[in-house]
Amino acid sequence: MCQHARMASSTHALPAHIRSQALERLRRLVAIPSVAADGRGISEAAVLVAELLREDGFTVEQLETAGAPVVYGERLVPGAPTVLLYHHYDVQPEDPVAAWHSPPFELSERDGALYGRGAADDKGELVSRLAALQLYRERHGELPLGVKVLVEGEEEIGSPNLAPFVHANAERLAADVALWEFGAVDGAGRPMTYCGMKGILTVELHVRTARQDLHSGYGVVVEDAAYRLAAAIASLRDARGNVTIDGFRDGIVPPSVAELALVDALPDEAEALREAFGLRGFLAGLEGAAWRRALFFEPTLNVNGFHAGYGGAGAKTVLPAEAIAKLDFRLVPDQDPWAVLERLREHLARSDFDDVEVRVLQHAERAARSDVGHPYVKEALAALRDVYGMEPTLHPNSPGSGPIHPFVVGLGLSVVGIGCGYPGSGIHAPDEHLRLVDFERGTVAVTRFLERLSGR
Amino acid sequence: MCQHARMASSTHALPAHIRSQALERLRRLVAIPSVAADGRGISEAAVLVAELLREDGFTVEQLETAGAPVVYGERLVPGAPTVLLYHHYDVQPEDPVAAWHSPPFELSERDGALYGRGAADDKGELVSRLAALQLYRERHGELPLGVKVLVEGEEEIGSPNLAPFVHANAERLAADVALWEFGAVDGAGRPMTYCGMKGILTVELHVRTARQDLHSGYGVVVEDAAYRLAAAIASLRDARGNVTIDGFRDGIVPPSVAELALVDALPDEAEALREAFGLRGFLAGLEGAAWRRALFFEPTLNVNGFHAGYGGAGAKTVLPAEAIAKLDFRLVPDQDPWAVLERLREHLARSDFDDVEVRVLQHAERAARSDVGHPYVKEALAALRDVYGMEPTLHPNSPGSGPIHPFVVGLGLSVVGIGCGYPGSGIHAPDEHLRLVDFERGTVAVTRFLERLSGR
Repeated sequence: MCQHARMASSTHALPAHIRSQALERLRRLVAIPSVAADGRGISEAAVLVAELLREDGFTVEQLETAGAPVVYGERLVPGAPTVLLYHHYDVQPEDPVAAWHSPPFELSERDGALYGRGAADDKGELVSRLAALQLYRERHGELPLGVKVLVEGEEEIGSPNLAPFVHANAERLAADVALWEFGAVDGAGRPMTYCGMKGILTVELHVRTARQDLHSGYGVVVEDAAYRLAAAIASLRDARGNVTIDGFRDGIVPPSVAELALVDALPDEAEALREAFGLRGFLAGLEGAAWRRALFFEPTLNVNGFHAGYGGAGAKTVLPAEAIAKLDFRLVPDQDPWAVLERLREHLARSDFDDVEVRVLQHAERAARSDVGHPYVKEALAALRDVYGMEPTLHPNSPGSGPIHPFVVGLGLSVVGIGCGYPGSGIHAPDEHLRLVDFERGTVAVTRFLERLSGR
Repeated sequence: MCQHARMASSTHALPAHIRSQALERLRRLVAIPSVAADGRGISEAAVLVAELLREDGFTVEQLETAGAPVVYGERLVPGAPTVLLYHHYDVQPEDPVAAWHSPPFELSERDGALYGRGAADDKGELVSRLAALQLYRERHGELPLGVKVLVEGEEEIGSPNLAPFVHANAERLAADVALWEFGAVDGAGRPMTYCGMKGILTVELHVRTARQDLHSGYGVVVEDAAYRLAAAIASLRDARGNVTIDGFRDGIVPPSVAELALVDALPDEAEALREAFGLRGFLAGLEGAAWRRALFFEPTLNVNGFHAGYGGAGAKTVLPAEAIAKLDFRLVPDQDPWAVLERLREHLARSDFDDVEVRVLQHAERAARSDVGHPYVKEALAALRDVYGMEPTLHPNSPGSGPIHPFVVGLGLSVVGIGCGYPGSGIHAPDEHLRLVDFERGTVAVTRFLERLSGR
């Protein structure tokens, strides 16, 4: 421990010129509102990412998909192992804008952190990886490993075109290990890595009960779209988060003994999260190992938004004719998002909610977990131990979702995540930010991982 | 029938100069956005109403309340019966503005109707009553009845200050019959009158689960404000509209044999309403007399609005930290709105929804029904029969709510409604309008009522 602590303060610092170049790159990236949900700034962001990769010596191509282009760069080293970096240049919408304390598309430094949409997820992580490669080069010269960088532009809408892209480019994308888009320290500052992601299905539910809003005096005989939708949603899950749709759990593969043991042994993060998020509490009764097993291994259903009728000041006695909700299902291996969609439709029809129309939004990703005992995973843990001077944690998967299935199952890659996040970084939320201390440590840890892979 | 039809085409027309003056007055009134919910244009509308009453020979006072002023005008005839006219100069919010086909605060004539917020409810009815008084005067000279006109400015937010005002001014407001703020023809064009109103309680439900919106990957362990509120609302009523709160029905006085007989004998309006409103259907299984008994005599709970989380394009995988819904309870005699509020709070606490905060909005009115057999009611029916040339219907109460309790119970008045509405007029909704044919007929019918009361 003492030895590692000493290392952290000396060889594990990020040189000022690398840091300042990376933050300037991040400033330029955050200034582009590359919101995949509405398509703003997507092409502009792709062009800038390609430019940065070229500056760093990659052979770069902008590869078209049925949606946003993939920016792909490679620097091959024949005969050597190859690391594939997966990132995305798109971001979540900035809504609700009023809740931000600085403009979302303007990188703003305060209190040791950089604020802006994408500062953490995932533009900050991308510039960190490029800085890590530069640090390696300055320390040791050219990296004796192949590097492939895939930066897509549709991650925040569920990567609808990535699985066919990966399938069609399997040979070009062949690698030995995928360094996934993010990593983090937990609430206590411990670094973590992970080997998988959850899956996801996003849908919109829509109810229309009349041609237009009516005087609510009719509500005693006429249906209320807002009530109908609230009742339909209430029928889909219980207070604990268990989805009550028949067949929803079909296909679930329980976690392995090794995966369960990892999660059971993780430090208890619940209190730290409760404090960081100002939570009223956790879903009924969850605590300890049960809390952690739910977080990592359980699927659920979230209501991302619900809008119907009057939302202004005071009262308006109106019967809304229309109600819309956005939902995401978080899935685990091997739930099939398209089967979940069918079960949802069957549930609504059977529960007398045949007036609730289901529209699929773009997200439909399968979950996947790669082998937690893989040698590359051990190297990632060792790199984190070296740089942070403390024992890292290994998560079988992130509680988030991502397009990992085509890489793990399609390309057969081992996956690890090392990066610059922390639980309070506000990704997907107002005031998203990247702490400078995490940026520095996370970047150096990636360099250390590359050093270990190349025998240093 | 033939005789009446002939009368409608001759003595029952509204002279052009009265009509054009009334519509000019309506144009000026609609141009003022007197939205009680946010207070816009309230004083300006009160001033204009006072000006119109003065022009028509009333002694006018603007009487202060704890909220918006009451405009009060009187023309007394000592020894003669007195008619009290109840109206309001405030309107519902114009939201959703995008759904209007002409600006809400600009009276716009098309297809034989006048569009604008308040064109029907209640500015159109007010100018109709004044036109009816003018028509009487042109036909017969001064009306040999006392007339008192009370125009308040808070009806659309539940008249929070009217009951104490009426109580404090009981002597000044003493009258023999109250001509209520509106009347209508039904879907088949039959005129109707009514003797009461439902009661109401409006509340806002509010849930906060975290300091800010979170990444929805945490939703498997953290509460989702939108789901919590949907589940809470679903627990308050069933699909048929029955409120499932313990004690909600306390105090309900069943309708009298005469009231039930009236409603059972009413023509079936369900199909006409379904067509006018483009309804998907009615609350489970309701039809025929059961449909009518529910409409007139049953209380319910409506969701007027529900807003939480993301509402933009595409998906945003966020866990909303906050959710707000606006609800109205429609009440029947003798439910006490404040007791209903207590039962609601108890229900939420008992159902494990103690995180759902209840805020009372302004509406809290008791229902009341005056005697359906009163002589003034018979005169109103006769007046409608005379002018429309067909048999009118008598409703024990309107399905809507209004501040009728202080007049019926406090002042002991008999109430009747004669006016210019029809079921498709879109009151409280976009494209609110007044059909010119209804305006003309409704105005003349009020004149005929005054003629009958004065023995002509």
